[in-house]
Amino acid sequence: MRGRFITLEGGEGVGKSTQMDAVRAWLESRGHRVLTTREPGGTPLSEHIRDLLKGWDGEDMDSDTELLLVFAARNEHLAKRIRPALERGEWVLCDRFTDATYAYQGSGRGIPPARIETLEQWVQGTLRPDLTLLLDVPVALGFERVSGRGEGHDRFEREQRDFFERVRSTYLARATNDPERFRVIDASPLPEQVSEAIRAVLDERHAVWAREHRK
Amino acid sequence: MRGRFITLEGGEGVGKSTQMDAVRAWLESRGHRVLTTREPGGTPLSEHIRDLLKGWDGEDMDSDTELLLVFAARNEHLAKRIRPALERGEWVLCDRFTDATYAYQGSGRGIPPARIETLEQWVQGTLRPDLTLLLDVPVALGFERVSGRGEGHDRFEREQRDFFERVRSTYLARATNDPERFRVIDASPLPEQVSEAIRAVLDERHAVWAREHRK
Repeated sequence: MRGRFITLEGGEGVGKSTQMDAVRAWLESRGHRVLTTREPGGTPLSEHIRDLLKGWDGEDMDSDTELLLVFAARNEHLAKRIRPALERGEWVLCDRFTDATYAYQGSGRGIPPARIETLEQWVQGTLRPDLTLLLDVPVALGFERVSGRGEGHDRFEREQRDFFERVRSTYLARATNDPERFRVIDASPLPEQVSEAIRAVLDERHAVWAREHRK
Repeated sequence: MRGRFITLEGGEGVGKSTQMDAVRAWLESRGHRVLTTREPGGTPLSEHIRDLLKGWDGEDMDSDTELLLVFAARNEHLAKRIRPALERGEWVLCDRFTDATYAYQGSGRGIPPARIETLEQWVQGTLRPDLTLLLDVPVALGFERVSGRGEGHDRFEREQRDFFERVRSTYLARATNDPERFRVIDASPLPEQVSEAIRAVLDERHAVWAREHRK
């Protein structure tokens, strides 16, 4: 069976790192070679660009510049690591990918989806993930997990919550529009229960891919 | 009269720096406020990206990554310096712009012009230079000026010459296709004679712009 391209997506406090490990372990238990990687990042140059995106301390970066840098990092990641791994028959497991760009740079920073689509097409051509696991929790819960405290009501916190709501809505809308690729996982329960739900999805998809392979 | 956007283009050894000074001096002699800048670069972030483009010493950068970084730097330059200056009524004089991208990343690195056009449109919208001065010399002469020596015949030098020939052809073809915006200046003579030719072009264009302004 050819290697598949699986992405994990989700907002703050959904427990993505723990579940990345669970997906990797599952894939390896099936005997697959797995490249685990993340965005933005994944190559030395792309990690350098990631540092720029997260740490640039000069004047505020224009949101279109940010988007071009995200896709520059992604292009390098695809050219140097993701496409070669898929061509070698490996599975690729990536912590965030282009859906995060629609959620964060799109809804978060107000860039129209059509402008993001143009760059997605330019950089990726027809390449899309084979499966996207969207870890979803209500914003209040994610926020609590990240901030390590209960309800707060100052203005900064309200603005952050609005931002997280927009990110979550965008993710969920994208999942609704592409049910073939997306599986939405309720990430509210304990991590082991979430991993169990993810393994059930992987069992189901894996069986489908195996049937496709035998045809 | 509103400020205009003027770019200087040309390959290696055409004497662009000297002629940048001449154009600036001419514009200031007409009482215009002038922003002199360069690409890639022109803002702290864009200069940082320029350093990456010229000095990245990790594995070879994918040519599409390079192009996205060029346009990220350009977007920031436009958003933070060029557009605000034009909106304040200043003139902008830029050492290389998007024509250089077609010449160097396009012909030099083999990226199809249609792919460059997509990013040009994405980043610039309808903004194009009002006037592009293309300084042109035969490749042999430019090469001699840059290398500070006469004819050489080793393989590396021949490859460089081929590269410079492609860059020059692309510049000249673009000038032919857009005679309204381009003026080709023969940069073979002594610098002062080249400046004289440039001033003649500026006199001519300036008179046209002044007439447009009075309408």
